[in-house]
This record gives sequence, C-alpha cells and structure tokens, in this order.
Amino acid sequence: MFTYTVIGSGALGAYYGGLLAKSGRTVRFLARSDYRTIQSEGLRVESINGDFHLKDVQVYDSTSDIPPSDVVLITLKTTANNALEQMLRPVVSENTILCVMQNGLGMEDELAAAFPSSTVIGAMCFICSHKIAPGVVRHLDFGHVTLAPRESGAMQSATELQREFLEASIKTALAESLGVARWKKLLWNIPYNGLSVVLNADTRRIMQMSESRALVRDIMVEVVTAANCCGYALGEESIDTMLEYTDSMTPYAPSMKLDYDNGRPMEIEYIYRKAIAAAKEAGCAMPKTEMLANLLSFRDEDRLRTGT
Amino acid sequence: MFTYTVIGSGALGAYYGGLLAKSGRTVRFLARSDYRTIQSEGLRVESINGDFHLKDVQVYDSTSDIPPSDVVLITLKTTANNALEQMLRPVVSENTILCVMQNGLGMEDELAAAFPSSTVIGAMCFICSHKIAPGVVRHLDFGHVTLAPRESGAMQSATELQREFLEASIKTALAESLGVARWKKLLWNIPYNGLSVVLNADTRRIMQMSESRALVRDIMVEVVTAANCCGYALGEESIDTMLEYTDSMTPYAPSMKLDYDNGRPMEIEYIYRKAIAAAKEAGCAMPKTEMLANLLSFRDEDRLRTGT
Repeated sequence: MFTYTVIGSGALGAYYGGLLAKSGRTVRFLARSDYRTIQSEGLRVESINGDFHLKDVQVYDSTSDIPPSDVVLITLKTTANNALEQMLRPVVSENTILCVMQNGLGMEDELAAAFPSSTVIGAMCFICSHKIAPGVVRHLDFGHVTLAPRESGAMQSATELQREFLEASIKTALAESLGVARWKKLLWNIPYNGLSVVLNADTRRIMQMSESRALVRDIMVEVVTAANCCGYALGEESIDTMLEYTDSMTPYAPSMKLDYDNGRPMEIEYIYRKAIAAAKEAGCAMPKTEMLANLLSFRDEDRLRTGT
Repeated sequence: MFTYTVIGSGALGAYYGGLLAKSGRTVRFLARSDYRTIQSEGLRVESINGDFHLKDVQVYDSTSDIPPSDVVLITLKTTANNALEQMLRPVVSENTILCVMQNGLGMEDELAAAFPSSTVIGAMCFICSHKIAPGVVRHLDFGHVTLAPRESGAMQSATELQREFLEASIKTALAESLGVARWKKLLWNIPYNGLSVVLNADTRRIMQMSESRALVRDIMVEVVTAANCCGYALGEESIDTMLEYTDSMTPYAPSMKLDYDNGRPMEIEYIYRKAIAAAKEAGCAMPKTEMLANLLSFRDEDRLRTGT
C-alpha cells in the first residue's frame, strides 16, 4: 500500500484523502486555515454515499514537517500554484508520484519541469463537493476519477494508483492521453464555471434557459475545436454527452461560483488563459471563451478595487 | 417652420423636443406615465448648456387627440416598437416626416413598410441624458445629431430638418448613407450598452480596466466587420476614434444600464439581434456580440422569472 500526502484539505483533499485513510492507508494532510480544527475534531465528510468521520487525522500546517510519502495528491486551487513548487519541495523525492487533482491545463508540465525525476499523473476528478465548515466537506454528486500519466512510461504507476483508489472505493478509470483527458474536463469547466459566475446561476438554471444553454453549447464547440487543433482528438458527440451529463446532475454551483461568492480568487489562469493560449499557439481562436475569461477577470479585479 | 409631434417625453424627447419648443416652434408631446406632471409642471431640462423650463407644454396622453404635424420625432425605446405603428397611425399623413431618434437597426425599414408614402429619416443622437423624475431630464454630455434619409430622394427633407434643428441650437449633421450612420452608432451602442449591464460598470470603469477595454475593442472589430459585410463602409480607424470619444466622455451609465437597473426591459432586439441577423444574412459571424446578447437575454428573462 502507498503512503499519501494530501496538499490541501478542502472539497477534494478531504474527500479523496478521507476515503484513502478510511481504507487503512497512511494519509498525511496539509491544512492551513483549518489546521487546528482538523487536529482537534478530525475530518468529516457528509456524502451521498454515506457520511464518515476520521477522528485521528495526521494533519500538518507545513510541508517541512511531513515525512516522505509515496504519493502526493495535489488538491489545492490553482490560484495557489505560484507557491506550489516551494511547498512541495520537502515532500517530493525521486520516487514520488505527483498526482494533480486540479482543474485546468498545464499544471503537469509545470510540475514536471520543477521535479524532473518524479512521476507526474493527472487526475481528472468528476465530483460535486464543497467545504461547508472547517474540516467538514459535503459530497453532493459523482466522485469518479480519471488518471492519466503525463508520460506514457508512467502508465504502470498510474495503474498501481488506480488499484489503490479502487480499493478505497474511489471509482477510477485510466486514460492514455493526458491531453485528451484534460481537454475533456475543460469541456465542462470552461462553460459552466464562468457562466455560473457571470449569470449568477447554478447548472440547472443555466441549462433551463435557451440563451444560456446555447452559450454553453457554443463554448463547448470552441473547446472541442481547440482540443483538436492542439492534437487531442475530442469528438463532436462529446458535447451532447456533456450536456446530458449536466442535465442529469443535482443542481450545482461550480467551484468558481463558490470561490467568487466567498470572495476568493477564481481559477481563471489555468482553466481559461492556459487553454486559450494553447489554442492560439495551435492557430485556433476561442472568441466566446476569451470573452468569458475577460468578463471574469474584470469581476476579479473590480472586486479587489472596490473591496466588495 | 415645421410643427412637431414628439412620441415620448423622456431623455431624448424632452431634450430635443424641449429645444425645438424653446426656439418658438409648435411641439406637441405624447407622454404616458408623466402626462399629468408635465401638464401641471411643464418640462424641465437640466443641461450642461444651461437649464431651461418649459411651463406651458402641449402634452397629450394619446396620439388620437394630437392634430397633424409636419414632423414626428420618435423617441420611445424600441422595446415599445410592437405598438408603434398603431400609436403613429393618427398622426401620420402623406407628407409627414418620420424622424427616428431610436437606437438600433431596422426601425426605419419597418416604418417605411407601415407608412409607405411618408418620408423616413433616421436620426443618430449622440447624447448622454436621462430622465431623473417625471417631466425632468438631465443632460450630461454631447447632444449632437446626425440625420440620414432612408431614401436618397428624401435628402431635401433631411436638409430642411437639419436647418430647423440648427435654429433650435441642436448641433446637426447630415449623412448620405443611413446604413453607414446606423452601424457607426452601433459601434458605440453594441459594446457599451451590454457590457455596462453585464459588468455592472459605467463607461469610465469599462475603459480603465484592460480586460473590459480589450472586450470593447474586440466587439467593435466585429461591428466594423459586420457593417462592411453588409455593404456599409466603416473604416478600422473608426474604432480608435470611438474609443477616444468614450475616454473623453463624462463617466456615463448607458441607457441599457439604466433600463436594467430600473427594472425596465432592455433594447436587446433592435441593438443586438437585428445587427447579428443582418450580419449573418451577409455571411458574417459576430460571436462576442452574440454572446453579449445572450447574456443580456438571460438576465432579462431571469429577472422576469425571479421577479428581482
């Protein structure tokens, strides 16, 4: 069995790290604002699959105190990625598997550049969950993970990680192409995250009204076109699949909406700008996606300016 | 001297109709909600060019009571245009000049179809003004008008109207092509009206922040491209001219922002949908403009749904 370090103890970290700990694995959590609460109260997960409470949690407030682990799960928001390399430095050794559970594009390349001898695996997490209090996470829907190694040589490590996840009751699939898997995840994140903020609406309302539904589709067409331009084959049919998937979801405020409503910075850089830049480099424009990103950036800055 | 009927006694009607009345011309105003106030208190214009107060105003609450005039100034919002033909019927005769002071595209064609023997002249009003109370209008900036006849044979009428306007201290120019003039006006209205609503910002803030300024420019590029596709020559340099014009303006909440904030319907149909449809018919896409229109339509409907 692998040992784990979970960077971040929020909606993703507490849920996936919690399931791994519950399955008997050694899991060490890095927490910041919730450190003392988790230390005294443990971690609670209120899940549609059954609530659970981890009473004795190995929680740390700095990575410099964490002993080496086999796997590091990165569950922080990408808005913290400028500090990520320094944060990881103490817990990464040559054999460490870095599993990136973030949303967006390009995180794995940045980590591979910073830690060239480590194994980097992307994890696409299809989950509706959010933190409702310090040390308490609510899991609303889904929860499955797709693992894709950054380099094909790491498929063996990805397969081992998949087995571990499955043993911890995490529904986990493997994907051969990280690029395809990341763009497929963006197919959901790019339209719904941004539109939920700009329209102040949850997924149900976005899907119910014809103008916003049309916008979701238009933006998805841009994402599929961009992915194919970048050399990652994504079929047109994936758009209908994703629309149906969202229709079937419990009405949900995407993470960016929760970030915005709670005064936190939004993941505009990794979810939008990196994708737009990759598409542009491949000679492909994403006008509506770019417009959405600019509307979000305006709101982000405007809020900082006005303090609201 | 012409006699005038002004349909609507708001930001445009009170200002331009007021100046014409002040210059000694017969001006009859149609008012709806403000009818009694204007009847008892007259019309007040608080203008950067000097305040004025018209005490005895010929005001009507129905066009069926208004005697025929030489010129009908149409200053209603286009959101009322579905009732416009019926409203105009009593005051339009064969020799009536219909002067359309609205924003958007296609209004003149609809009027020409409804009143084929009348002369239709488009009036592009470059003005920052708004109603601040019943019968009271505040004029903040600019105020000049460009007149363009729908058919070249009506240039003589447009010239006479120009002379009348000039005598009433309304700075007035003539344009040969109504199409070019309308698209040029849209070059301002399409970006600023919608973005002010979606971003909850006035013109100054939109221009100050790099992301929104970039969006304004992107949308202006679409408008210029669409105009040219439709056969109306608009130069690229008009974009910089319009940006500089806006930089020089007193910070201003465009009319659509005021409509939205005050719970009134927005002029999405004539300012956005007609332009997008005309461009599409000419084989030209306006993706960001279309996205903006959809964001606005969503807000319009969402507000009706939620009653907020």
